[in-house]
Amino acid sequence: MKEITPIKKIKEGMSIQGFYLCVDKHVRHARTGDLFIDLVLRDKTGQIHGKIWNKVKFFNEKFNSGEAVVAKADVSSYQGRLQLDIKKIGRASVQTHGRYGYDPTLIVPSSEKDPKRMWEELSLLVKKIKNRRLKKLVTQIYKENKESIIVCPASLSSHYNYRSGLLECILSMSGVALDLTERYNVDMDLLLAGVLLHDIGKVKELSNRLESELTDEGNFIGHSVISRDMVKAVAGTIKGFPKSLLLKLEHMILAHRGQLEWRSSRKPNFPEALLLHQIHHLEKHMNLMKMALEQDEENSDWTLRNNHLFIPLYKR
Amino acid sequence: MKEITPIKKIKEGMSIQGFYLCVDKHVRHARTGDLFIDLVLRDKTGQIHGKIWNKVKFFNEKFNSGEAVVAKADVSSYQGRLQLDIKKIGRASVQTHGRYGYDPTLIVPSSEKDPKRMWEELSLLVKKIKNRRLKKLVTQIYKENKESIIVCPASLSSHYNYRSGLLECILSMSGVALDLTERYNVDMDLLLAGVLLHDIGKVKELSNRLESELTDEGNFIGHSVISRDMVKAVAGTIKGFPKSLLLKLEHMILAHRGQLEWRSSRKPNFPEALLLHQIHHLEKHMNLMKMALEQDEENSDWTLRNNHLFIPLYKR
Amino acid sequence: MKEITPIKKIKEGMSIQGFYLCVDKHVRHARTGDLFIDLVLRDKTGQIHGKIWNKVKFFNEKFNSGEAVVAKADVSSYQGRLQLDIKKIGRASVQTHGRYGYDPTLIVPSSEKDPKRMWEELSLLVKKIKNRRLKKLVTQIYKENKESIIVCPASLSSHYNYRSGLLECILSMSGVALDLTERYNVDMDLLLAGVLLHDIGKVKELSNRLESELTDEGNFIGHSVISRDMVKAVAGTIKGFPKSLLLKLEHMILAHRGQLEWRSSRKPNFPEALLLHQIHHLEKHMNLMKMALEQDEENSDWTLRNNHLFIPLYKR
Amino acid sequence: MKEITPIKKIKEGMSIQGFYLCVDKHVRHARTGDLFIDLVLRDKTGQIHGKIWNKVKFFNEKFNSGEAVVAKADVSSYQGRLQLDIKKIGRASVQTHGRYGYDPTLIVPSSEKDPKRMWEELSLLVKKIKNRRLKKLVTQIYKENKESIIVCPASLSSHYNYRSGLLECILSMSGVALDLTERYNVDMDLLLAGVLLHDIGKVKELSNRLESELTDEGNFIGHSVISRDMVKAVAGTIKGFPKSLLLKLEHMILAHRGQLEWRSSRKPNFPEALLLHQIHHLEKHMNLMKMALEQDEENSDWTLRNNHLFIPLYKR
Amino acid sequence: MKEITPIKKIKEGMSIQGFYLCVDKHVRHARTGDLFIDLVLRDKTGQIHGKIWNKVKFFNEKFNSGEAVVAKADVSSYQGRLQLDIKKIGRASVQTHGRYGYDPTLIVPSSEKDPKRMWEELSLLVKKIKNRRLKKLVTQIYKENKESIIVCPASLSSHYNYRSGLLECILSMSGVALDLTERYNVDMDLLLAGVLLHDIGKVKELSNRLESELTDEGNFIGHSVISRDMVKAVAGTIKGFPKSLLLKLEHMILAHRGQLEWRSSRKPNFPEALLLHQIHHLEKHMNLMKMALEQDEENSDWTLRNNHLFIPLYKR
Amino acid sequence: MKEITPIKKIKEGMSIQGFYLCVDKHVRHARTGDLFIDLVLRDKTGQIHGKIWNKVKFFNEKFNSGEAVVAKADVSSYQGRLQLDIKKIGRASVQTHGRYGYDPTLIVPSSEKDPKRMWEELSLLVKKIKNRRLKKLVTQIYKENKESIIVCPASLSSHYNYRSGLLECILSMSGVALDLTERYNVDMDLLLAGVLLHDIGKVKELSNRLESELTDEGNFIGHSVISRDMVKAVAGTIKGFPKSLLLKLEHMILAHRGQLEWRSSRKPNFPEALLLHQIHHLEKHMNLMKMALEQDEENSDWTLRNNHLFIPLYKR
Repeated sequence: MKEITPIKKIKEGMSIQGFYLCVDKHVRHARTGDLFIDLVLRDKTGQIHGKIWNKVKFFNEKFNSGEAVVAKADVSSYQGRLQLDIKKIGRASVQTHGRYGYDPTLIVPSSEKDPKRMWEELSLLVKKIKNRRLKKLVTQIYKENKESIIVCPASLSSHYNYRSGLLECILSMSGVALDLTERYNVDMDLLLAGVLLHDIGKVKELSNRLESELTDEGNFIGHSVISRDMVKAVAGTIKGFPKSLLLKLEHMILAHRGQLEWRSSRKPNFPEALLLHQIHHLEKHMNLMKMALEQDEENSDWTLRNNHLFIPLYKR
Repeated sequence: MKEITPIKKIKEGMSIQGFYLCVDKHVRHARTGDLFIDLVLRDKTGQIHGKIWNKVKFFNEKFNSGEAVVAKADVSSYQGRLQLDIKKIGRASVQTHGRYGYDPTLIVPSSEKDPKRMWEELSLLVKKIKNRRLKKLVTQIYKENKESIIVCPASLSSHYNYRSGLLECILSMSGVALDLTERYNVDMDLLLAGVLLHDIGKVKELSNRLESELTDEGNFIGHSVISRDMVKAVAGTIKGFPKSLLLKLEHMILAHRGQLEWRSSRKPNFPEALLLHQIHHLEKHMNLMKMALEQDEENSDWTLRNNHLFIPLYKR
Repeated sequence: MKEITPIKKIKEGMSIQGFYLCVDKHVRHARTGDLFIDLVLRDKTGQIHGKIWNKVKFFNEKFNSGEAVVAKADVSSYQGRLQLDIKKIGRASVQTHGRYGYDPTLIVPSSEKDPKRMWEELSLLVKKIKNRRLKKLVTQIYKENKESIIVCPASLSSHYNYRSGLLECILSMSGVALDLTERYNVDMDLLLAGVLLHDIGKVKELSNRLESELTDEGNFIGHSVISRDMVKAVAGTIKGFPKSLLLKLEHMILAHRGQLEWRSSRKPNFPEALLLHQIHHLEKHMNLMKMALEQDEENSDWTLRNNHLFIPLYKR
Repeated sequence: MKEITPIKKIKEGMSIQGFYLCVDKHVRHARTGDLFIDLVLRDKTGQIHGKIWNKVKFFNEKFNSGEAVVAKADVSSYQGRLQLDIKKIGRASVQTHGRYGYDPTLIVPSSEKDPKRMWEELSLLVKKIKNRRLKKLVTQIYKENKESIIVCPASLSSHYNYRSGLLECILSMSGVALDLTERYNVDMDLLLAGVLLHDIGKVKELSNRLESELTDEGNFIGHSVISRDMVKAVAGTIKGFPKSLLLKLEHMILAHRGQLEWRSSRKPNFPEALLLHQIHHLEKHMNLMKMALEQDEENSDWTLRNNHLFIPLYKR
Repeated sequence: MKEITPIKKIKEGMSIQGFYLCVDKHVRHARTGDLFIDLVLRDKTGQIHGKIWNKVKFFNEKFNSGEAVVAKADVSSYQGRLQLDIKKIGRASVQTHGRYGYDPTLIVPSSEKDPKRMWEELSLLVKKIKNRRLKKLVTQIYKENKESIIVCPASLSSHYNYRSGLLECILSMSGVALDLTERYNVDMDLLLAGVLLHDIGKVKELSNRLESELTDEGNFIGHSVISRDMVKAVAGTIKGFPKSLLLKLEHMILAHRGQLEWRSSRKPNFPEALLLHQIHHLEKHMNLMKMALEQDEENSDWTLRNNHLFIPLYKR
Repeated sequence: MKEITPIKKIKEGMSIQGFYLCVDKHVRHARTGDLFIDLVLRDKTGQIHGKIWNKVKFFNEKFNSGEAVVAKADVSSYQGRLQLDIKKIGRASVQTHGRYGYDPTLIVPSSEKDPKRMWEELSLLVKKIKNRRLKKLVTQIYKENKESIIVCPASLSSHYNYRSGLLECILSMSGVALDLTERYNVDMDLLLAGVLLHDIGKVKELSNRLESELTDEGNFIGHSVISRDMVKAVAGTIKGFPKSLLLKLEHMILAHRGQLEWRSSRKPNFPEALLLHQIHHLEKHMNLMKMALEQDEENSDWTLRNNHLFIPLYKR
C-alpha cells in the first residue's frame, strides 16, 4: 500500500486506503430488496460510516465487528456526513500487514510508551527483588503471561484504559514503591512483589481483543481474587516458599482496593499492604486527573465537570 | 466425681468440684513475696474468680488459659464477692473426663440442637443434590472437615455465635433454600450446594478452640475466599467437573455478602447467587433478633437498644 | 373486525386495524393552516406515530391520550419512519369491543398469569388463616377492593411494574411466607395477613388507568400508611378485634420497607415484622433480576449495567 | 413538713425530709437473711442511695419505682458515699402533698416557663387561624388532650427533653411560623395548624409518667403517624372539612422529619410542608445547642464534644 | 429603533430588530468556499439561530460571543426551523442603547424585583446594626462592591441563579434574621452582619458578565473563604474592631454551609452561627422549591422529579 | 538533684524526686476539715496519684495543673494503689532545672528524632526550592514561627500527636514529595512549598503548652484557612510574587484534606494539589498504623480493633 489515510484526514471525493477497527457491522436490505453492509470504522483519529454495495456475501465473511480491517474506498457525502463506499475490505493482522504499516496502536488508543521498552524496564525491576523465592515467583508469572501483559489495559473505562496501560501503570507504581520503601522502613521485596502482582489478574479479567471487555471470569470472580490465585498457584510450585510470606502477599492483593471508609471489603492490615493500597490510590487518581486534563476540549482554562473527579480542573 | 457444681449454684462455704473454662490465668506475687495464681473460670451458667496458693508451679503447668479444666475448690468470699480457693486443678478432656460428666457444651454456649443429629440431617440433605459431581464435591468437603464443622460457630460475636452454630445455621438455610428453589424456578442443585458451601471456610477462619478467635488465615484472607478455595481445590480433583458450573459456584460464594448498597464488594449476578445472598441475610437477621429477644433481661415488654438491630424489640 | 394488526407487524403500504393505547395526542396547525392531529399509539409489541388529516374536530372528541383506542389506518413512510394515516378512530372498551378481540393485556404489559386464576389462588390462601377475626379482616378488604387489586401493578417502574403485578407479587410472597412460617416458628396467621395486606394501599396510591401514575393520595401519604389505614378502618368494624393484634399488624405494614441501614424509617421490631420485610426484599430483588434478564437485548452472555441492580447480569 | 431538703444539700449526720422520684427499688436479702429495700432517689439537684431496714413489707407496698415519694431519713455514709436510712416513706401526689410544697417540677427537669401561661399563649395563637374548620380542628384536639399536652416532653433524650417541653417547643415554632408566613407568602392557616399538630402524637408516643418512656403505640407506630391519625379522626367529625386541605395537612405531618438527604422517608412536597420541616429542624438544633451550652461543666470557654452536635461549642 | 421584537414573537417572513445575547458565534466556510458567521442569539423569551453572509469580516469584529448585541435581520426558515439572515449587528450597551430600550434584564433572566429598590431596602437594614464598628464594616464592604452586588446572582445553577439574585436572597434572609433574633435571644448585630456578609464573596467567585461563570479565584478559593477575607481586610482598617467579634464573624461565614451530617467542613459552634446556617438552608430550599414549581411545564398537578429536590412537587 | 525517678520505677517505701507533668490538681477538705491537695502526676513512663498534706496554701500557689513540676515525695500505698506523699513541689522549667536534668521530652510523649536535627534537615530542604520568591516565602514563615514549629504536634489525638510531631510529619512528607515530583512530572517548587506550608497553621490552631489543646482561632477558623492566611500575608510582602502562583498555593493548602468522596469541602483541582493531598493521606495513615502497632499491648500476633484503622493489625 502506498499511503494510509487516517480517518480525520478523509475528505469528500478522495479514494483512500488504510487500517481501521470495525466497531459495528450489519447486513441490511435496501428498499430495492438488495443486501448491503452497514459499517462503522474507527481509528485513533476518529470514526466514519461506510457501506458495501458489491460482493456483499463475499466481503461479509472476510471480517467481523471487533476486528482490525484493511480497506479501500471512495469517499462520498450523505446528508452532510462523510461516508465510505467500500471497494475492498478484509481482516488485517500484524503477520500479514505489518510490513505495509499496520500497527494496532494506530487504531486503538495505546500507551505513548513503547511496550517492549516498558517490558525491559520491568525486567530490571524484578531483579531488584532480593528474596530469591519472591523473585522466582514474579519472574515466572510474568513470563507465563507476557503476551497478555504487554497489551492489557489497566481498566476498561477508568485509569490507564488503553492498550499497554497495565504495564505503564505497574511501572509507575513500582517506581513510587522503590522510593517509599526506605522512607517507611518496609520490606522492599514484599512491597515490590505486591505492586508487580496485585493487578496481574487483569489479564484474565479483561479479554485480549482490540476492544477489551470483561471475561466471564472477570465478571464472576474479579481481578483481585484472580491475581491472588495466580500468585498462590505458582508459589505452590516453588519449593520452600514460606507459608507466612505467601499469606501476606495474598492479603496485600486481596486488600489493595480496601478504602478504609468502605464497608465489607478486606482492609490492609500491615504496613506493606497499606502502602500498596495508597500507591494504587495515588497512581489511579493522578492518572485520572492527567487524562481529564488532556482530553478536555473546552476553550477555557478550566475543564468541564464530566470527568472521573467530578470537578472543573485547571489546565494551565 | 460425685457431683458437678455449676457456677451459678456456688455459695459461700461450699466445697465444690466441676468442669470449667479457664478464661484468664496470671501468676502474681503476693505482698509476702510468694507466688500465687489468679484465675477466672467460666461455664454456661456464670463466671467466678479463683486463686491457687499451693503447689503453684505444679498446677501452673497443668493447664492454660483458654482450656477446659477440672477443679476442686473451697468457696470463700472476699469484699462481697465469691472466690474459689483451688485445691486441685488440671486439664479436662472428653477422652479422660467424659465418663465423669465432662461435656464441652456445659462450659461454653452451644447450640441447643444435638450436633450429631444435625450432622445426620445434613447428610440427608446432601443426598438431595442430583448432579453427581456437585454431590461428590459437597460430600467430600464435608467429610474432610467433619470434625471442625461439628463444633464451629457461625460467627464470633454476631449470629449463631456459639458451639455448633455453623451447622445449625447452614441447616436452617438449607431448609429455606429447598422451599424457595421451586418458587423462584432456580437450579436446586446449585443453590443447595451454594448454601452448604458458602461459609465452609469458617472452619479455617475461626480457631477450633473452646473460645474461638480469628486465625491468621481468617484475618488475612477471610472466610469467603477461603470457602471458595476449598471448593475449587476439591472440584479440581473431580473428573469432568464443568468449568462453568464451578465458576458459578465460586461466584455465589464470593458474592454471598454482596449487599447491593455497598461499594467495592462483588455483587450476586445471577438468580441462584442472589437467592443465596438473600437467604443468608434473612437467616442472619432472624437469628440476631431471636438472640436479642432471648438475652434481654429488662423487666419490660421491650428490650433495650443494645442489640445488633439497634432498636427496642417487642418481647411478647 | 376481521384481523388485528399488532404494531410490530405493520409494514409500509398495508391497511390495518387494531386496538392500541394512545400515549400522546396533539392538535397542530399544518403550514397550510389546516388542523391535524399528531398521535403516538402503542401496544405490547411496539410504538408508532400517526396523523389524522380528516374530520379532525370529530375524531378529536372521540378519545383522549391515555385511553385505549380502536383504529383503521393506511401505512406510509416519512423520512424512513413508518407512519399511520388514520382513517377512523375511537375509544375502545371491553364492554363494546371485547367481542372483537379487544383485551387490555394486548396493549399494556401485563402479568403472564391469568388474573382470575390468581384471584382464586389467593382466596384459597386467605382460608388458611385460622384466626377468624384476621381472616374476616383480610377477606373483607380484598372483597371491597377486588376490582382494583386484580389490575393494579406492584410498582410504577420497579418490581412487577405491569398490569396485575400486585396480585402476582403478593401470591409469590404468600407462598414464601407459608414455607418460612414453620421454619422460623412464627405466627402464620399474623405473617400471612401481613403479606396479604402490606401493599394493599397500592390500589389507592396508583391510579387505575391503563397507564398507572401516582394519585394525590399516593404522593401525599404513600402506600404504607394507606395500607395500614385500610386495615385499621376495617378492623374497627370487626367486633372484638384484639387491640394488640391490630397494633402488631399496623407495625408490620408501616415497617415493611424498614431497611436496617436506613435512617428515619420505622424498623421491624418483632419476628413476624422482620420476616415480612425480608420476604418483601427477597421478592422485589428476585423479580428485578428476572425482569432485567428478560429485557436485556444485548447480543452477549451478559446484560448491560442499566438495570435496577446496576451490574452486568449473567444470562445463561 | 417544716423544711424540704434537696438532695445536693444533704450532708452526713443530718435528719432530712423531702420529695423525691424513686428511680430504682429492689427488695434484697441481707447476709443475715433479713429483707431490706435498696433504693435510688432523685430530684432536680442530684441522686442518692437509700435503704429501708424496718417495716420492709409495709413500706414496700406504699410506692413503686417511677413514682414520686415523700420520705424521712437519717443520713449516714458508707464507703465514702452518702446514704439515706429511710425512716418513713410513701407515695407523693399534688392532691395530698401540694400544700406541703410538693411540686413535680422539683423532682424532674421541667420547662422554666409556666405551663399554664404557655397554654394561654397557645390558645391565643389558635385564634389567629382564620379558616374556621382548621381552627375547630386544632381547638378540639388541644382540648381533648390538654392534660397530657401540658406535661409532655418534646423528646426522651434529645431536644426539649423535659416536663412541658412539647408545649414550649410548639410555642416557639409557632412564633417562627407566624414570622415566616408572610415572608414566604404561604398559607398561614395551614402552616400554623401544621406546627400546632405535627407533634401532637407525642402525647401518645410517650407515657405520661414522671419519667417518660415509649409506649407500645410509640414503639409500633411512631408519633408522626399517630399525630396524623389524631388529625384525620377529628377532621372526620367536622362537617365540610375539605378533603384536599386534610390531605395537605396529613402530608405536612407525615413529612415533617423528611430530610432531603435521607432515603425512604416521605419528603415535603409543597411550600408549607417544606417550611414546617425547616422550622422543626431549626427549633430542634437551636434547642440542642442551647442545652449543650447550659449543661457543659468544663472549666473552659469551650464545651466538650459529648453533645448532640458532636463538636466543641463556644460558651461566651 | 421603532420596535423591539422578542424572540418568541419572531415569525417567518418578518423583518425584525432587537437586543439579544449572543451565546454562540463561529466563522465557517460554506461549500462555495465563502466565509459566513453562524450565530445563536438568546433573550428571556427564547433562542434562535442566525447567519451573516455579508461583510463577514466587518461584523465579526463588532461583537463577541457572551455579549449583548443589537441586530437587524430578515426571518427565513430552514428545515422547519426559523433562522435570522442578519443584515446589521453590533455590540449593545446601556450607555449607547439604553435610550432605544436596551436593558440587560430583557436578555438574561433577572430578579423580578427592582435592584435599585432592593439596594435601598438593604441600606435601611444596615442602619439597624447598633454596634457602630460592625455597621461601618458592612457599610464599607457594600459601598466598595456596590456595582457587582447589584447584578450578581446567588448561584450559577441552584438557588436565585439569575441577575440580582444575590441581593434578593440576602434581603429575604435579613428579614428572617430580624424576625428570629429576638425569638432565639441572639445578638442581632452579629446575626445581621453575618447574613449581610456571608455570601459577599460571590461577587468575586462569579464573573460579572451577562452569563456568569466561576472565576479563577472562585474555583481555587471558593466564596466562603473569599467572603471572610473581604470582611477581615476591611475590619483591619477599622480602629478598635474587637478581635473576638471579628473571630466570631469569620467563623459564621466559614461555617455557614456546615451541615451537621457532613464530614470535613467547619460546623457552626455558637448560636448566631447555627442560626445563620439554618436561615441560609431555609432560604435556599424555599427558593429551589419555588423555582421548581414555577418552571415545571407538565400538564399535571404534580411536577416531574427533575428538580433540585428530586421529588414530584404539588403545584396547586 | 542526685537522681530522677521515672514513674514506672516508683515502688512502695521509696523516697523519690523527679520531674513530672501535673495533669490534675484539686484542693479538698479532709473529713477532719483540713485542706489538702489531690494531684495526678504523669511522665512518659506512667501516671501516679499524689497528696500534699503540709503547707497546702504555700504549695498551691507554686504551680498549676498543666505545668511541669519538680517534686520530692515518699511513696506509700492506699487500697492497693501507689501514692505519693509530696514533701516539696514547684514549677519546673528548662531555664532553672535544665541543668538538673529536666527536659520536657521526659514528661510528655515526644518525637524520637532530635528537633534541632530535624530543623536543620528542613532548612536544607527549603534550599532546594529554585523559585526565589517561593523560597523566600517559606524561609520567612519558618523563621517567624521557629519556636512553635519546633515543638508543635501534628494533631491532638490522631497522627504524630506528640511534641515535635509536626516537624517530623512535614519532613517525612517532604521526602516523599521530592521522590514523586519527577515521577509525576509536576512543579517541584510548588509541591515542596505546599508540603512545607500546608499545615503551618497548626502552630496557631494548637496551643503551645505541654498538653496541647485547640485555641480559639483553631476552633473558629481551623488550620487549613490559618495556614493559607499566613502564606498570603507573607507573600504580600514579597515584591513581585506572582498572583497566579499565590492562588495555586492557597488552593493547595485549602484543599489538602479534600477527599474526593466527601461533600462540601474544596477538592484539589490541579496535579500538585492532588499530589499534596495524596501525600498527606499516605503519611497520616502510615503513621496511624505505625502507632497502633507500637502501642498495642495484646499478647497476640494481632492488635485489638481499638485503633484509628478500626481493624486488627498484624504485628509481626
